[in-house]
Amino acid sequence: MKEFSPVEWKNNQLIVLDQLLLPFQQKEIICRTYKDVAACIKDMNLRGAPLIGIAAAFGLAMEVKRSKAAKYDKFSREIIKAGEELINTRPTAVNLKWAVDRMIKLMEQNRERRIPSLKDLLIAEASRIYKEDLDNNKLIGKYGSELIREKDTVLTHCNAGALATAGYGTALGVIRAAHEKKKKITVFVDETRPYLQGARLTAWEMEQEKIPHFLITDNMAGYFMSIGKINVVVVGADRITANGDVANKIGTYSAAVLAYTNNIPFYVAAPSSTIDFSLKNGSQIPIEMRSEDEVKKIFGRDIAPKKTKALHPAFDVTPSKYITAIITEKGVIRAPYEQNLEKVFLNKEVVADL
Amino acid sequence: MKEFSPVEWKNNQLIVLDQLLLPFQQKEIICRTYKDVAACIKDMNLRGAPLIGIAAAFGLAMEVKRSKAAKYDKFSREIIKAGEELINTRPTAVNLKWAVDRMIKLMEQNRERRIPSLKDLLIAEASRIYKEDLDNNKLIGKYGSELIREKDTVLTHCNAGALATAGYGTALGVIRAAHEKKKKITVFVDETRPYLQGARLTAWEMEQEKIPHFLITDNMAGYFMSIGKINVVVVGADRITANGDVANKIGTYSAAVLAYTNNIPFYVAAPSSTIDFSLKNGSQIPIEMRSEDEVKKIFGRDIAPKKTKALHPAFDVTPSKYITAIITEKGVIRAPYEQNLEKVFLNKEVVADL
Repeated sequence: MKEFSPVEWKNNQLIVLDQLLLPFQQKEIICRTYKDVAACIKDMNLRGAPLIGIAAAFGLAMEVKRSKAAKYDKFSREIIKAGEELINTRPTAVNLKWAVDRMIKLMEQNRERRIPSLKDLLIAEASRIYKEDLDNNKLIGKYGSELIREKDTVLTHCNAGALATAGYGTALGVIRAAHEKKKKITVFVDETRPYLQGARLTAWEMEQEKIPHFLITDNMAGYFMSIGKINVVVVGADRITANGDVANKIGTYSAAVLAYTNNIPFYVAAPSSTIDFSLKNGSQIPIEMRSEDEVKKIFGRDIAPKKTKALHPAFDVTPSKYITAIITEKGVIRAPYEQNLEKVFLNKEVVADL
Repeated sequence: MKEFSPVEWKNNQLIVLDQLLLPFQQKEIICRTYKDVAACIKDMNLRGAPLIGIAAAFGLAMEVKRSKAAKYDKFSREIIKAGEELINTRPTAVNLKWAVDRMIKLMEQNRERRIPSLKDLLIAEASRIYKEDLDNNKLIGKYGSELIREKDTVLTHCNAGALATAGYGTALGVIRAAHEKKKKITVFVDETRPYLQGARLTAWEMEQEKIPHFLITDNMAGYFMSIGKINVVVVGADRITANGDVANKIGTYSAAVLAYTNNIPFYVAAPSSTIDFSLKNGSQIPIEMRSEDEVKKIFGRDIAPKKTKALHPAFDVTPSKYITAIITEKGVIRAPYEQNLEKVFLNKEVVADL
């Protein structure tokens, strides 16, 4: 299970474990074109900020393979168009744009190569993005597990696990690593309405790993904090701005405020591909509004009167003041975030725990 | 709809609208004995702090009617036993105990009466408890609606509506009254997992009254507060202690902390039958732990892996520091709560807004 991955790149196709059906069914979807990948991202058959970046890179690799263009100009137009389409599937997680931009940049840097050689380079790059994410998660787990104390009860929200990444996970990578170090932790799993990623995916990962855990509804987390039953919170991220504000699954902001109020450390675990230095703060992050039916129905069944309207923001923004530290593959970053994120990721200074 | 009631007392039977089936089906359950009533309370066919108090009073009235005891001692033992059984169905809402105690006290005060006359007195008392609750809700609505401003967007959690009371509602009574005053309000309805009382019951009441409303998942409320879309919060209560701490549906504490953090007024609307002067503060309130299956399943369908365990506290406690005011039938009570609750309800001083 440690080496479990939610996607597999095989014969220039992406085999995707359909996360909409988990944990009740384990079915695979085979993506043969970038449009298949785009549909899987949009419909949330695969989700999780790092994973949708990885999938987009493989989607582009498929288009690279498919292209019949003999000249760079036509070839690059095709790849850029596919990249734009992939980026437009979901607006909040920046890893999608990060992965596409990385592929496009590599293409442009190697425009002088012959097309077959350029194609090989780009297809290999997608696998490199995948491999790097897995390595980064192991490092996040290593650094983050130092912050988890013996017998801690850890709250997590949504799924920032193996299923949200190339494998191992970010927030769940921290939890996995702490468990591997035999810290006797217990995990409280927010069910994470409306998509129930916590109940369906995180509980499933915890069950597979035999990590002791309890499922709770999202509105119970504050209560358990108030009576001292939760000692630490670890979540993933969809986008981190230059000042350390964090967009993540709807409900994260509430968990952060409640942790702050109860003096409980609140950690965000994410690879550097999640950091968007082009945005100064969280108010600039686009928040995806999804279908109201995803709130009004559970597994296709109505939960409210037909005429009632619902709202469905899929993410929220947690101001950096509520975040105790950001756990990355380069180490643990603490406030002042603007200064320390720049130091580590733009100036490339080496740190373990700032 | 304004005169809608979730229970009807008819021919010494209680006709109960089955709230587990709303809004999809409107079915009635006929309670013929206090044991039928106890089962309906325990299984949540009827719920809401004031309503379970009312139902318990009618349950006792059934036992009063049924008793064949010719002497006071035997009669009173039977009634006290039934009362204890009713109180034990659910531990958190104090209205249940309040209603039973009121009936028992009246019985004891009139022990010198002949049994048939005592029976008439007690049966009439149950209807008086019902009628008073309806009147109190109208007064709560009157006082509370003064606190709602033109075009406010009001968040409510769970259902403190007509369905939770004799009719009209407490928190929803405030909302109804503000709507009747044409304040052009919009209501944000927390779905309220795990029982979905918000999605099923509050949205249904809002729909019946044509009050503009949006359903949201519980974890969205903080986000909408943070972006200025929610201006005020009004909830009900299951028990209020002498210092103004409030037990209410799980998730209320989180909404209160989030409102406090975002400088949004947070009001609790409840009749005086909800106040428990025997408890100093909220830490003494028993919190009902319900079945984990109510979290792990939605409408009978699993939402998590079979082996995953869940926790299900049905209530939480909001410290009075997070409460802007408590809206009662005697007026609006503000901090210092210990002093002002005592002044109004024990010393019976008249107030409109303290």
